[in-house]
This record gives sequence, structure tokens and C-alpha cells, in this order.
Amino acid sequence: VSDRPHVVIIGGGFAGLYLAKRLKRAAVRVTLIDRRNHHLFQPMLYQVATAALNPSDIASPIRSILRRHEHLDVILGEAVRVDTNARTVHLADGDTVSYDFLAVAPGARHSYFGHPEWESAAPGLKSLEDAVEIRRRVLLAFERAEREPSASARHELLTFVVVGGGPTGVEVAGALAEIRRFALARDFRHIDPREAEVMLLEAGPRILPSYPECLSARAKAELRELGVIVRESSAVTTVHSDAVEVEGGLRIPTTTVVWAAGNQASPLLTTLGAELTRQGRVVVEPDCSIAGHPEVLVLGDAAWHEHGGAPPVPATCPGGIQMGQHAAKAILATIAGKPRTPFRYFNKGQLAVIGRGRAVADLGKLRFSGFFAWLAWALIHIAYLIGFRNRVLVMIQYAWAYVTFAHGARLITGETGEYAARIARGA
Amino acid sequence: VSDRPHVVIIGGGFAGLYLAKRLKRAAVRVTLIDRRNHHLFQPMLYQVATAALNPSDIASPIRSILRRHEHLDVILGEAVRVDTNARTVHLADGDTVSYDFLAVAPGARHSYFGHPEWESAAPGLKSLEDAVEIRRRVLLAFERAEREPSASARHELLTFVVVGGGPTGVEVAGALAEIRRFALARDFRHIDPREAEVMLLEAGPRILPSYPECLSARAKAELRELGVIVRESSAVTTVHSDAVEVEGGLRIPTTTVVWAAGNQASPLLTTLGAELTRQGRVVVEPDCSIAGHPEVLVLGDAAWHEHGGAPPVPATCPGGIQMGQHAAKAILATIAGKPRTPFRYFNKGQLAVIGRGRAVADLGKLRFSGFFAWLAWALIHIAYLIGFRNRVLVMIQYAWAYVTFAHGARLITGETGEYAARIARGA
Repeated sequence: VSDRPHVVIIGGGFAGLYLAKRLKRAAVRVTLIDRRNHHLFQPMLYQVATAALNPSDIASPIRSILRRHEHLDVILGEAVRVDTNARTVHLADGDTVSYDFLAVAPGARHSYFGHPEWESAAPGLKSLEDAVEIRRRVLLAFERAEREPSASARHELLTFVVVGGGPTGVEVAGALAEIRRFALARDFRHIDPREAEVMLLEAGPRILPSYPECLSARAKAELRELGVIVRESSAVTTVHSDAVEVEGGLRIPTTTVVWAAGNQASPLLTTLGAELTRQGRVVVEPDCSIAGHPEVLVLGDAAWHEHGGAPPVPATCPGGIQMGQHAAKAILATIAGKPRTPFRYFNKGQLAVIGRGRAVADLGKLRFSGFFAWLAWALIHIAYLIGFRNRVLVMIQYAWAYVTFAHGARLITGETGEYAARIARGA
Repeated sequence: VSDRPHVVIIGGGFAGLYLAKRLKRAAVRVTLIDRRNHHLFQPMLYQVATAALNPSDIASPIRSILRRHEHLDVILGEAVRVDTNARTVHLADGDTVSYDFLAVAPGARHSYFGHPEWESAAPGLKSLEDAVEIRRRVLLAFERAEREPSASARHELLTFVVVGGGPTGVEVAGALAEIRRFALARDFRHIDPREAEVMLLEAGPRILPSYPECLSARAKAELRELGVIVRESSAVTTVHSDAVEVEGGLRIPTTTVVWAAGNQASPLLTTLGAELTRQGRVVVEPDCSIAGHPEVLVLGDAAWHEHGGAPPVPATCPGGIQMGQHAAKAILATIAGKPRTPFRYFNKGQLAVIGRGRAVADLGKLRFSGFFAWLAWALIHIAYLIGFRNRVLVMIQYAWAYVTFAHGARLITGETGEYAARIARGA
């Protein structure tokens, strides 16, 4: 086995996982490196942030998922540098891993457009830790408001601002509007959570810019029905710890901001020596490799793939999954001495969920919204939760939440003291 | 309503919660103060620490549990001082709350017998954060061992030491022995998790000292069957970050220590001006009040109640529940101008779980062990999870884990880097 070609995969997201799965019966050794021990089902991450699901409902240890994959090693570690000449990956703890083929799929982080200092006041939503932190802030804001005698301070606490009108921003805004109206409505004595305001700020002229205009308008209407204030053409100019300032002079006092406005690819990519886009994504060849190094493939959100007259491959789960599957084919073709085929993205369409029974679906010629779009979303996403032992639990929790409006995952963990004190001080 | 007597409860544990529930239809106003937003079902906390259950399975927001209690306020805040003369409770954020009746039930923390510096190397198990931290360390130790070339360093990583042979220590040791043998057995390539060693150290002459001797011996035999090394008369003399030293010269290299050896009552109790035991518990009157202040009752783990020739009330859930129920009766008697009755603890017996299908039961004259003791434990504990919306989920998860040996809650969250690096350095 040890003389088989060694395929190293950086990142256990959708691209890395589907690549590893496709190599299960191939005559290669595989090593998968990830900073986390779990694969995360990111499309449902906003549900953890809004206390509808628990972290473990949408995450599963990578070792468990790939347990039956005999010639595969999983390394819990952080890749910090790739040496494409020596064909080695350097880890944060000093170890190095040699490869014959390398797949780089480290995903992306949120970007603050040159203002990293905004992050503490406006956390993004990429990891389980991010989601639990946002949940903590949202729930603590209600707790503080319950005890706040000053009406203006109460108003500040009960204003939630979501920055960025892409699918994540729309999902978070819709979910916040719902927990305020349903799940939390009966929990407090001195405040009415239904009076909380949820604002969605989008810099461009319309939310869901990747969707057809009619669906953007539909999504906006659905959000308004839920009571979300949607403001387009409203780029954020400053984020303070107690307010957000918007182009044109609007200033919104708030202690809870969720950032869903921009992505920045992993800094690891700068060590590949390949051409990068402004967001730090690697401009890849038609077969997803980097120029001059067919043995190095870049996949998922880290790759910028624009070839054959097609639009660029979107930084979504289907994009990552298809790239991972393609990478397996490309590697096996090279081992077999055959030429590689170029990667072609097959666009199955896109779905964005807005709330309970509310979504928009863009399936090419078929465009629809409302309950059936939501049903399609729920079924597709649950079907994707393959290899997750808790698929059944998620469905039960879903059904339960749908019937009772209860949000059971409303735990505030971590130290409540410091952040609560910071809100109390108005700092 | 505002001229009703005001009952303030510090602590949303078993005592505080059952007191609040009993006051639901009484002509009083109730305010419950807790540092956390959730009530925690502590008897199952070790299952979170050993990756069998998720945090939300055993915790529920206090607001949700008491939602239907009309004249009750919940305050998320930390009581730091009681002024028994002014009848006010001072909170950490500077607020004060006045009371007519006060129930003090803040629970306990673990105690390191004058060595607080041991805490970082040997965390205890009282809160959800504690449990998640222990889970993180246990899972990271296996991950590091998988990549460790040195056999001695691997051995150090795969040695788990539990200090304290009470029910918690026995439960943790048994559960660690099981995940090593069953849940993790197939996950790794380079190590065999079954080779991990679990040691249980007890300072006294036998584990489960509050149980009859025959059950202590039975528990020890069951632990041995699971492969746990049980050492009695082995008081810990020093905890280093890479080893534990035991009376008599034994030195155990290990990076993972769980502390289950001692309790210390809340520092809040020192502000009551009442007599304290060495563990910091308040010596209470027969009716659970403090001397000279019948309006102040101390309940649960915070109280030392030894009256009427009976043994002291144990610091367990039934003790807390019964004291909470008694406190409601005492307060209502005083309001009605009637005398209070002394509190009498009704000992229903005790149960300690050791592993899947293994437990010991001491129900007075009835003493038994093995599968039926375990079944009794499981049924009683699930029945107690009242008011928890996820009782059904817990049962499903239990049944699932029992059938598949899978431990689904194996997520490492929080920053993996720093602790992992510390283990790597052997520091």
C-alpha cells in the first residue's frame, strides 16, 4: 500500500469529503488534513445561530464519515504552507506531509473589506463557534433588555442588524424575525420580543443578487411579511460596538450585528504561487489544477473556475461537491496515463429559505416561491445530510419545531459575564 | 400583585426550580436569579463529557421551564452578596433586588483542597462548559496520539486519570472505558483506542463510600470488567500538566485528568453571616432557615442539614428537590401565620451507573447491581427529565447509542490549536 500514489486533501468540507469518498476503491493512499475534527453542513449553520438546531445536528466527525475508507488517514492539523516544488504541505505544529497529488480545499472566511476591527462587533457565520457566538449574543440581548429600565437602551438591545443580502443574510434575518415572533414571544415578562426589530442591509440594488429579479422581489416581500426591514443600496460605512453606520447618514443603534457580506479565501492559498482573484481565490485551469502543476488541484470556495464561456462556478455546496468528484476523476485519469477532461459545472439551480414555509427556488426555467419552494429546500437539504448519523434526529427536531414553534436549542454557553457586562456598560 | 410578598430565589438548580414550581399558584411574587440561562440536569453531565449526549439534551432554558408561571421573573445575573439586614441581594452588575423571603440555592463548585493551580490541568465537572472542555481534551488526546511517533508520548496521551471515586468519578471512568472500547475503536488508523488506559484514583479505602460495602466491591468488579484500573487509598499529592503524583510515590504520566474529588460551596454563602462547615456549606436550622433569619432559607448543596438524629441530608438531586418543596411549604406557612414544620429528608435510595447495562442500586433493604440496576437508573433519570422538551430525543439517542455503540456527540469545538499545541510540546 505504501508505494501507492499519495493523495493529500486539505479541508474536510464538501469538496474534500466528496473527493475522499470517490477515491475509496482506488489504488491510492489518501491523507485528509483539517483544522477541525468535524465536517460541517454549512447550509444549515444559520439554524444554529438562531437557536433552532444544535451544533451536533449539522456536524459529524470526519473520522466517522470516512471510517470505512481503508487507505485513508485523517490528520487534525492546520496546513499553513504548500511547497509546490518539494511537494510537501507544512503544518502549524512543524510537521510536513509529502504528496504525489494535492487537493487544496480550505474554504473561505468572511471578509470585512479592510476593516478587520469590525469583526468583534459583527461576527460572521462560517464555523460552529461563530454560530454559537451569534446565538449567545442574540439570546443575551433579550435577557439584558428584560432588565433594562431605559427605553432607548432597550431599543438598542432589541435591534438586530444583518449585513449582506445574499442567501446567508436572508436566512439569518428571516430566522431572527421568526424566533422573535414565535419561539421567544412567551418567555419574557417585561419586554415583548415581538417588538424587536430585524434589519437586513444590502449594499447592492437588490437582495439575492445571484437570483432572477422576480425572486429577489418575492424574497423581499416574504421578509417584509415576517416584519424584517429590508434596505437595499445601503452599504455599511462603519461598525461600532453600539451602532452601525450606513452610506447616506443612517445610524442604527444596536448591540447585535451579524456579518454576511463578504468572503475572503484562506491565506494558505497565497503560498501556492498561483494567480489569485481580489477575494484571494486561486484562478484554476479548466481541470481545476494550477498552472504548471497538474498534480495540485484547488477546489470549492478556494477556486475561481471560469472557462468554456460558462459563468464562474459559484462558491456553493454543489460547486464544491462537483469539483471534488471531478478531482477524483482527474487524479485517476493521470495515474492511468489518460488525459483529463475539463471540469464542467452542472447548475441544478438555487434555493434560498426565508422562514417556516417560505423560500424561493430558481431551478432554471422553473421559478417559484412559498411553501413548495420551502418543502423542496427542506427535502433536498435533509437528503444531503448523508453519512450523518443524526439525520433522523434532525427530521424529528424539524417536525417538532414546526408544530410547536419551540426553539429548543436556546442555551447560552460560554462566559455570559463579560459580554453581558459590556452590553450593560453600553460599550 | 405588586403588594404580594416577594420571594427571591438564587439558583435555578433542582432546589430553586422545585421551589419555584411549588409557588406557582401561591399569592406571592417570585424572582429567580441565575448566572446561566439554563437549568442543567447534572446527573447526566458525565455523558456530555464523554461524548454520548449533546449539551442541549440535558439542559433547558429556565424561562421555558417556568413559562406558565405568571407571577415569576427570571433574571440572568450573578448574586454576589446578600444583605440580610436590608433584605437585599446585590448582583455583579451593581443592581440590587429586595426580598421578603430569600431562598439561597447556588450549588457548589469543585474543590482542589487548597491547590487551585491544579484546575487548569484537572478540570472538574459541574457545568456544561466543564463537560465540553473535558470532551475536547479527551478527543484531542486521541487525535494527537494518532500522529505521535514516540511510544512513550503516545502512552502519556492515551492515559486518562479520574480523581475521586464517588458516583461522578465512577461514571466518568466507566464511560471513558466504554468510548475507548466501542465508540472510537474503528475511527483511527495508527493507534488502537482500546489500548488507552483509564485509571480511577480514590483517596479513601473504597470507591462509592456512601454505598454499602458490598456495592462498592461490586462497582469495582464491574469497572475492572470494563478495563478500568481502580486504585483505592491513593490520595493525589500533585497534579502537573503532564503527570499526576500519588501518595506512596506512584507517578502517572498523563495529559488528561478529570477532577471529581471534592466540592466547595459558593462564596456567596459567606455573606450570609451564618455558621459554615469546612466545605463552606451553611449550617441550617431544622426548617432550612438560618439562625435569626427565618425569612432566609438555604437549600440544596449549599445547606448542611443535620437534625433529629438523622444523617445529614446528602448533596444530591433528591436532597435539593425535597428541600425546594419543603421551602415552599415553610414560606407559605409563615405567610398564613402558621408554624413551620421541620424538614425531614426521605431517602429513596441511591443509584450509580458504571456503564452500558452496568450499575449499582442501594434502595434501603434492596441492594442489587448489573442490568436491572442500570434499567432502574435509566428509567428514573429519564422520568426526572420533566419539563425538558427533548425528553423524547434523549430516549431516542439513548436507544440509538445502545444499539450501535456510536457516540454521536464527538465534536471538538473551541480553539483546538492552543491546547493541541500544549500537548504537542508536552507542556
